[in-house]
Amino acid sequence: MEFYTFINIGGTIAFAASGALAGIRKKLDVFGLAVMAFVTSVGGGTIRDILIGHLPVKWILDSSIVLLIAGVTLITVLFKNRIEKLDKTLTFFDSLGLGFFTLRGIQEGIAIQLDIPSCLILGTITACFGGVIRDILLNEIPTLFRKEIYATACILGGIIFFLLQKLNVSAQIVDIITILTIFGIRLIAVKMNISLPKVD
Amino acid sequence: MEFYTFINIGGTIAFAASGALAGIRKKLDVFGLAVMAFVTSVGGGTIRDILIGHLPVKWILDSSIVLLIAGVTLITVLFKNRIEKLDKTLTFFDSLGLGFFTLRGIQEGIAIQLDIPSCLILGTITACFGGVIRDILLNEIPTLFRKEIYATACILGGIIFFLLQKLNVSAQIVDIITILTIFGIRLIAVKMNISLPKVD
Amino acid sequence: MEFYTFINIGGTIAFAASGALAGIRKKLDVFGLAVMAFVTSVGGGTIRDILIGHLPVKWILDSSIVLLIAGVTLITVLFKNRIEKLDKTLTFFDSLGLGFFTLRGIQEGIAIQLDIPSCLILGTITACFGGVIRDILLNEIPTLFRKEIYATACILGGIIFFLLQKLNVSAQIVDIITILTIFGIRLIAVKMNISLPKVD
Repeated sequence: MEFYTFINIGGTIAFAASGALAGIRKKLDVFGLAVMAFVTSVGGGTIRDILIGHLPVKWILDSSIVLLIAGVTLITVLFKNRIEKLDKTLTFFDSLGLGFFTLRGIQEGIAIQLDIPSCLILGTITACFGGVIRDILLNEIPTLFRKEIYATACILGGIIFFLLQKLNVSAQIVDIITILTIFGIRLIAVKMNISLPKVD
Repeated sequence: MEFYTFINIGGTIAFAASGALAGIRKKLDVFGLAVMAFVTSVGGGTIRDILIGHLPVKWILDSSIVLLIAGVTLITVLFKNRIEKLDKTLTFFDSLGLGFFTLRGIQEGIAIQLDIPSCLILGTITACFGGVIRDILLNEIPTLFRKEIYATACILGGIIFFLLQKLNVSAQIVDIITILTIFGIRLIAVKMNISLPKVD
Repeated sequence: MEFYTFINIGGTIAFAASGALAGIRKKLDVFGLAVMAFVTSVGGGTIRDILIGHLPVKWILDSSIVLLIAGVTLITVLFKNRIEKLDKTLTFFDSLGLGFFTLRGIQEGIAIQLDIPSCLILGTITACFGGVIRDILLNEIPTLFRKEIYATACILGGIIFFLLQKLNVSAQIVDIITILTIFGIRLIAVKMNISLPKVD
């Protein structure tokens, strides 16, 4: 439980910081940075909740996430240079968040009895599509569709999840292995600069 | 029934292929192409279902559409050159799909007792707004708003639908004439390179 | 009541006209202009209604808004030059609409017992995010995130709203002061060309 809370908050902060930094690079004003931090960290879960009809979306019912993200934005604005130097720490939590949010999306799918492909889709949307909204708002073709191993890590992690479940591994262990698989694939891909192939 | 299934699948394939091809042109990776195929073919229906609150959206409850589109993406990647040469076949099914998806949107509107303008809007969104999402993700001003007769065909076909219904024409015949009207207007517009007027 | 109707219609017209004019500048066709007018004026409320699950969205249940916006588009197309000269009138109603739509969003939040930060978010989304959709469709980084005092006026007005409510000021007066505060801040910001600060 505390392990999940830790990852959830760490991932949210990393996603928010990356959103705010992306906004700074595009010369947004302070309000724009806050929106960027916000959509990057809760955008994926919001799309998921809309698609499955879990409305009102959770962050509107509980302002603690909003306040956390506002705080991250403020700190990113005030200590921009220092935070940019935290590159490795951010990548660490970003990758951990990627794993956790994928797991969350898969669990939401299971909770409403979706089949495996739809659960994988929900997991991937939860983890990755906040970044897609961020890139659209910043007027760029989403990185997710062009380079890096990002969604692929989520899908592979999700497949591991269902394989382990089929093998009757205990729930907690399935969760942890899933998160660590996604975390590991993502970190290796960043380190070795691996991308998906393109056509032609 | 089988006629509708045929058009539905043909239209879905044509929309998905056009999405994947657009992604290839923009140098997306394989995952990006799959997303492009997916949003182009189910994006319009998804927006419609969100607006009217038919949630969860249908494709998340039934993975057969997802698998069909994944297959189309794979085939488009493997046989890219051959599929690009199928230009006329794709336009044929794309136009048929345009008619069918418009009809589906109108019927969804009637099912919840919307008035005629709202039904026309739902039909047009269902048929055309998958392409809008595709263009936004590819960082372009949507073609739909700039050139070609596309939405206009849907709106005109929808008006024919309600005129025929008023004249007590049997449901099946109304459906077929509506689809063929949209199909015909679209093909003629493509052939004769007709566009809507601009201002100034 | 009549005061609200007046502001509502005035604001809707101003938002729609600004959307259509933005579309003309980007050389959209007539259908594109209508969509631009439409998303600019109802887009914010639509996002709000989706987030809180108030579906179907209101404008699909009542075509009068659709017809009003279609009319505004037509008039903007026909009398483009004259309407562009109405710059000050448009800004006047746009600012009034900004206040009114913020108030509407806050009230929707209160109606479902959201806390204050979420109500402020809903108010800002209602008033400002139609313009965000417009800018995304026109392939630009949303103005809202880059310059001018726009969202800030909504947030400040919303804070005034809750302060006055706490002070037991009568509802009608709270409403009017909120609208006028947002209206005033916005007009002053336009006049004095004030923007939010950027980082670096």
